[in-house]
Amino acid sequence: MKTDIEISQNANLENIKDVASRIGIKENELEQYGNYKAKVNLDESDIPKNHKLILVTSINPTAAGEGKTTLTIGLGDAFKHINQSCAIALREPSLGPVMGIKGGATGGGYAQVVPMEDINLFFTGDFPALTEAHNTLSALIDNHIQHGNELNLDPRQITWKRVLDINDRELRQVVIGLGGRTSGTPRQDGFDITVASELMAILCLSKNLSDLKHRISKILIGYTYDKQPVTVEDLGVTGALTLLLKDALKPNLVQTLEHTPAFVHGGPFANIAHGCNSILATKAALKSADYTITEAGFGADLGGEKFLDITSQNIGKTPDSIVIVATVRALKLNGGVNKNELDTENIDALKQGAANLGRHIENMKQYGKPVVVAINKFVSDTDTEIEVLKSYVESHHVKGILADVWAKGGAGAVDLANELVNTCNNEDKFKPLYDKNDDILDKLNSIVTKIYGGSKVELSSKAARQLKNYRKRGWNQLPICVAKNQYSFTDDAKKLGAPDNFTIHVREFQPKLGASFIVALTGKVLTMPGLPSHPAALDMDIDNNGKITGLF
Amino acid sequence: MKTDIEISQNANLENIKDVASRIGIKENELEQYGNYKAKVNLDESDIPKNHKLILVTSINPTAAGEGKTTLTIGLGDAFKHINQSCAIALREPSLGPVMGIKGGATGGGYAQVVPMEDINLFFTGDFPALTEAHNTLSALIDNHIQHGNELNLDPRQITWKRVLDINDRELRQVVIGLGGRTSGTPRQDGFDITVASELMAILCLSKNLSDLKHRISKILIGYTYDKQPVTVEDLGVTGALTLLLKDALKPNLVQTLEHTPAFVHGGPFANIAHGCNSILATKAALKSADYTITEAGFGADLGGEKFLDITSQNIGKTPDSIVIVATVRALKLNGGVNKNELDTENIDALKQGAANLGRHIENMKQYGKPVVVAINKFVSDTDTEIEVLKSYVESHHVKGILADVWAKGGAGAVDLANELVNTCNNEDKFKPLYDKNDDILDKLNSIVTKIYGGSKVELSSKAARQLKNYRKRGWNQLPICVAKNQYSFTDDAKKLGAPDNFTIHVREFQPKLGASFIVALTGKVLTMPGLPSHPAALDMDIDNNGKITGLF
Repeated sequence: MKTDIEISQNANLENIKDVASRIGIKENELEQYGNYKAKVNLDESDIPKNHKLILVTSINPTAAGEGKTTLTIGLGDAFKHINQSCAIALREPSLGPVMGIKGGATGGGYAQVVPMEDINLFFTGDFPALTEAHNTLSALIDNHIQHGNELNLDPRQITWKRVLDINDRELRQVVIGLGGRTSGTPRQDGFDITVASELMAILCLSKNLSDLKHRISKILIGYTYDKQPVTVEDLGVTGALTLLLKDALKPNLVQTLEHTPAFVHGGPFANIAHGCNSILATKAALKSADYTITEAGFGADLGGEKFLDITSQNIGKTPDSIVIVATVRALKLNGGVNKNELDTENIDALKQGAANLGRHIENMKQYGKPVVVAINKFVSDTDTEIEVLKSYVESHHVKGILADVWAKGGAGAVDLANELVNTCNNEDKFKPLYDKNDDILDKLNSIVTKIYGGSKVELSSKAARQLKNYRKRGWNQLPICVAKNQYSFTDDAKKLGAPDNFTIHVREFQPKLGASFIVALTGKVLTMPGLPSHPAALDMDIDNNGKITGLF
Repeated sequence: MKTDIEISQNANLENIKDVASRIGIKENELEQYGNYKAKVNLDESDIPKNHKLILVTSINPTAAGEGKTTLTIGLGDAFKHINQSCAIALREPSLGPVMGIKGGATGGGYAQVVPMEDINLFFTGDFPALTEAHNTLSALIDNHIQHGNELNLDPRQITWKRVLDINDRELRQVVIGLGGRTSGTPRQDGFDITVASELMAILCLSKNLSDLKHRISKILIGYTYDKQPVTVEDLGVTGALTLLLKDALKPNLVQTLEHTPAFVHGGPFANIAHGCNSILATKAALKSADYTITEAGFGADLGGEKFLDITSQNIGKTPDSIVIVATVRALKLNGGVNKNELDTENIDALKQGAANLGRHIENMKQYGKPVVVAINKFVSDTDTEIEVLKSYVESHHVKGILADVWAKGGAGAVDLANELVNTCNNEDKFKPLYDKNDDILDKLNSIVTKIYGGSKVELSSKAARQLKNYRKRGWNQLPICVAKNQYSFTDDAKKLGAPDNFTIHVREFQPKLGASFIVALTGKVLTMPGLPSHPAALDMDIDNNGKITGLF
């Protein structure tokens, strides 16, 4: 059996110019990076109203795998099999996890975006540009303090941390500025992973260069000794940071193994950030094809909720259909089966674990749009298991459709594509989860009770103090972006399935005034991951001809 | 008068495909990054023996400016004016200084490499790749310690620091790994600027992918508790780091305003590293044209010496001629004139400061190759001053030739180009400064006495201890790469001109076993610069159409 990277290396790619011209992108709107990658610069004001948007989300992820990205890509390819035009919008992989845990973010088997090596490594340089811009701001802040501190910034209250696109637990909490007067002011600091940078969120939510610049100017960097907020605008470096991101802002165009256009751009994680690709990429896809498939990170409690409550408001369009990806294996694991026993049929565990899927179905239905469940086939699934799962899904009054894109590519998702063509024509009305004028705590309560299935929110004394403060400052109109572990509806990663009657603990808020949301850090969620005891980097190699192995 | 960026923005560029095809680069050897940048992948085994290499170096730099890069570019263009084929090999700019002090590294006036904005920002992503690979190694080292520390690494003796391509004094000395058991091991660390990374030196000295990989495997990362050296090979991540640099290793091709091909690749600073562009770029230029002009960083005491003693040994070819760039203004400043009075004629100060040039001339002559002085014209120079400088140069038995490339482009260096065509045909024999089998201290003494004009070397107790240790380990056969301030022959930046009878203080050695040299840190030289009180970033902007201002 071929590995993902072997399938990718043997793929027959079209020149990206041809992919682009097929969807009406003009030569002057395309900037090639080699023959198979390009950035696009489109006028996105004229997206036809009848073009449809499909959101792919999933149950809570498990070690057993759901294959959400793989399904998204295969589904995109399936539309060609039913003679419909389709484009895909995805996030870019982060190098931190690529070096850490085997597995990138470019799909798998016969449902991949390519060239997978390039996309998984530096691609067109978007993440490096974000890292550089973020840390340049950090250096400018400390330099301002060093040279007289005209803004009266309190070094104990700098909220702008540093970032690297690396899983590096060693940098989570650091003391910087040691070494005496000429080497800065000693203070506490920490590094987040680049995907958690507010600049990443801003890049993904900006409508154009001027919006990017405006959002950057509003970023909160800290407070003065008098507790007054200080922004990038106050520091006078909006222009410099914006120009560092001028190319990163343009969506990247690549293709799937079956030559479906894929706009792969931006990459916030859904556990610690808002978890959706850039709105410019989604709009580029919407402009290019009748159907756009986009994916939101992790489960529907994280990426799904954030797509619907934050991202789609910025796109100016809500999804015409929502697909929830589930697998028999992941549901059995949610039902208590040991990771090593997933190959054995276990109907009881499946039924028990299916409650996780059930809650996600009901959650997504609340938004008033059609919901479809995609059952992503694994070789170990038995016919009985699949039938049981299908009837479970139907008991929630939605369709459960089997897909096998890993082995068959687009041909494996034809039924799913056909179903979506039908549901996308429904004239259902979007129902938002909360009113943006609600108090921050009320918005948070809506997410916890209506999406997670919890009973209440508990604020740490720090969070309570912050909340009071934000109300005074008038930051109440911002949406909430919850940072929470991806495995559980609760803030405890070990509570699988569909637990009830639990409390979500908010330890801290972070106002992201440029991105325009308030992050709520819950439980023990970390904004800088670590590497495992056997990082994937140990198994990677490249031969003298440049051929890579072990990347996947 | 147009600014550099305005001249660049109005330039009429050739498609890089055409530039490449004119110098015999085939389509399958070229990877385009947009229409005006490309990476090349050449077979460099068949460089014609009669192709000539010209090294451009200079007097000690001053705030008054020497314009060495500008002269290098204009000189390259001048060869076209005399119907000779020529290519240029240059270093890439580092973003840290671009954000700090106004002025990039792409030339100026009518002698620029273009597109200057792209080259000065992220270009083709080489620096970000180096930063990522460097810090990935850091994370893997700390992760190894975290997960059982099988190699018995001593956290107090990790020699591999972290890097960012940012001027950030605040990160020079830090304490990392705080926050308890799950967030790493507390230890001292620090960040260097990316150009000082050993990976940057390795990238610039590697002959091919297999050499790159071999050198990476030899990098010293620290010592065990038993004081045994530990390398990247021991850690088992050679392949992963090499694949992160697979594209960065390929030289970049751009053009000058007059369409001369320019290979711009790699960017170590000459004060804290070896200061030369990649040998692959120089060899690509040598293969492409009869004459190659390459530049080494800062004065001939730093970049010049290192090109001759380190880089050219790796190229397998020494320069056929050496150009020393000098300006009337910089020599007057060396002669004691105040920075604000350089516009006034001052023959006495010029004569006094010319001693700096004199020492560089004699230094370069020691290597046994023809030396020419290029007098880079500034509008404030008087005819008398230029004549005085010319006769001073001739008193050293070399020619002093006026060049005016900033205002005239290649037309401003025709005399200089003609002179070089003559001198390059001399069959002079290269005389190395030291024997590589000399002891480390003897090699250092050769540099200090024969190049700097100092009388002796003083080692700190730490450096003395290290030296003893290196002799035992057999690291004696490596060349020395001195880290020293660029302004003075001494290790005190304030002593201009040509001081005598001084001591060079080595505070610390750093063995770079992958790059294959020993760094000697002298005086107070820092491997992480800071930003000035008014960083250039404050004056940068970009409008809604993407037009940049204030970058230069």
